[in-house]
Amino acid sequence: MIVRDVQDPLERLVKLLTMLPGIGERTARRLAYHVLRAPAEYPEDLAHALLEIRGKLCECSSCGNISEQEVCPICSDTSRDPRKLCVVASIQDLQVIERSGSFRGRYFVLHGYVAPLDGLNPEDLDTDHLLSLVRENGVREVIIATNPTVEGEATAGYLAQRLRDEGVKITRIASGIQHGGEIEYSDPVSVARAIDRRDEY
Amino acid sequence: MIVRDVQDPLERLVKLLTMLPGIGERTARRLAYHVLRAPAEYPEDLAHALLEIRGKLCECSSCGNISEQEVCPICSDTSRDPRKLCVVASIQDLQVIERSGSFRGRYFVLHGYVAPLDGLNPEDLDTDHLLSLVRENGVREVIIATNPTVEGEATAGYLAQRLRDEGVKITRIASGIQHGGEIEYSDPVSVARAIDRRDEY
Repeated sequence: MIVRDVQDPLERLVKLLTMLPGIGERTARRLAYHVLRAPAEYPEDLAHALLEIRGKLCECSSCGNISEQEVCPICSDTSRDPRKLCVVASIQDLQVIERSGSFRGRYFVLHGYVAPLDGLNPEDLDTDHLLSLVRENGVREVIIATNPTVEGEATAGYLAQRLRDEGVKITRIASGIQHGGEIEYSDPVSVARAIDRRDEY
Repeated sequence: MIVRDVQDPLERLVKLLTMLPGIGERTARRLAYHVLRAPAEYPEDLAHALLEIRGKLCECSSCGNISEQEVCPICSDTSRDPRKLCVVASIQDLQVIERSGSFRGRYFVLHGYVAPLDGLNPEDLDTDHLLSLVRENGVREVIIATNPTVEGEATAGYLAQRLRDEGVKITRIASGIQHGGEIEYSDPVSVARAIDRRDEY
């Protein structure tokens, strides 16, 4: 790792912090100065916690969720329907769906999006693993639960294409005006979708 | 530290990360997931860097700047004028002034502002240390270089009051329309200051 060549300890910490998502150099420097002035236990505890999560947690070998065991509690839960597979972009999204209590099947975490402009190509997503899961578990329905954003839709389109020949039902989470939202303040795409995908009352 | 009681390793890391300035729970969680998926060297390097800066760097005993020695290179530099003391709120501000090359005296870092609404009271600033520096070094001018913001002005006012009886010249950095800025797009306070504090041409 090239960072190890940085001699100055402060600059090395700043460099390492800028490798975290959403942390620019200015923020990294502010964080580094904070650590420098914090009580001595703080950097010790943080260093320990950083090493510990790598020792104690891993990715579920089936769905990609974080887990203390090789297979996560969701994939091990026999009361859940293995024939319904919900594909999400991140662990955060998985957790939000879990908290909603609206889904009792299994998940597959993509750990990313298709975003060619950011150098994220379809090949970077582990769709082979997704396809083998679909076959092994006899999945009947794949729910594509990526964000209704440009990247999320591009990812959904790519996945739908890859899954087309698998003989599974492919669904996409609904998007429209959010619950509690107001039509007046909604963006035109959400309004158009809410009209297009209207339900019978 | 109460964080040590948090049993779950991921939750403990998230909790520790939220103790950094500007990092909320959502960001902390995103950072933690990133660490979990990064190559194994990354958390190791980061943990090492966190511990190392505490071992190798300290606060300059004179000015509060970060330093590898007990007294920082600026305070040790005999070519600088110890009778001019520039008071800054943070190490970042000190570095920006140094980079401008406009000051050849010494510094005093407050490590904070007076901001009673945020629970930062004048007593929290180490003004006793500032006053003893002023006396010991025979300081003739104290330049108060805090931001021209509400907190910065409150801090400057408090410092000016504390320094009043020391028989030193007390100055405040100029504020006005920034270099390259346009009057049309400047805020009213900056414009008013630029007029009030106009220089002879």
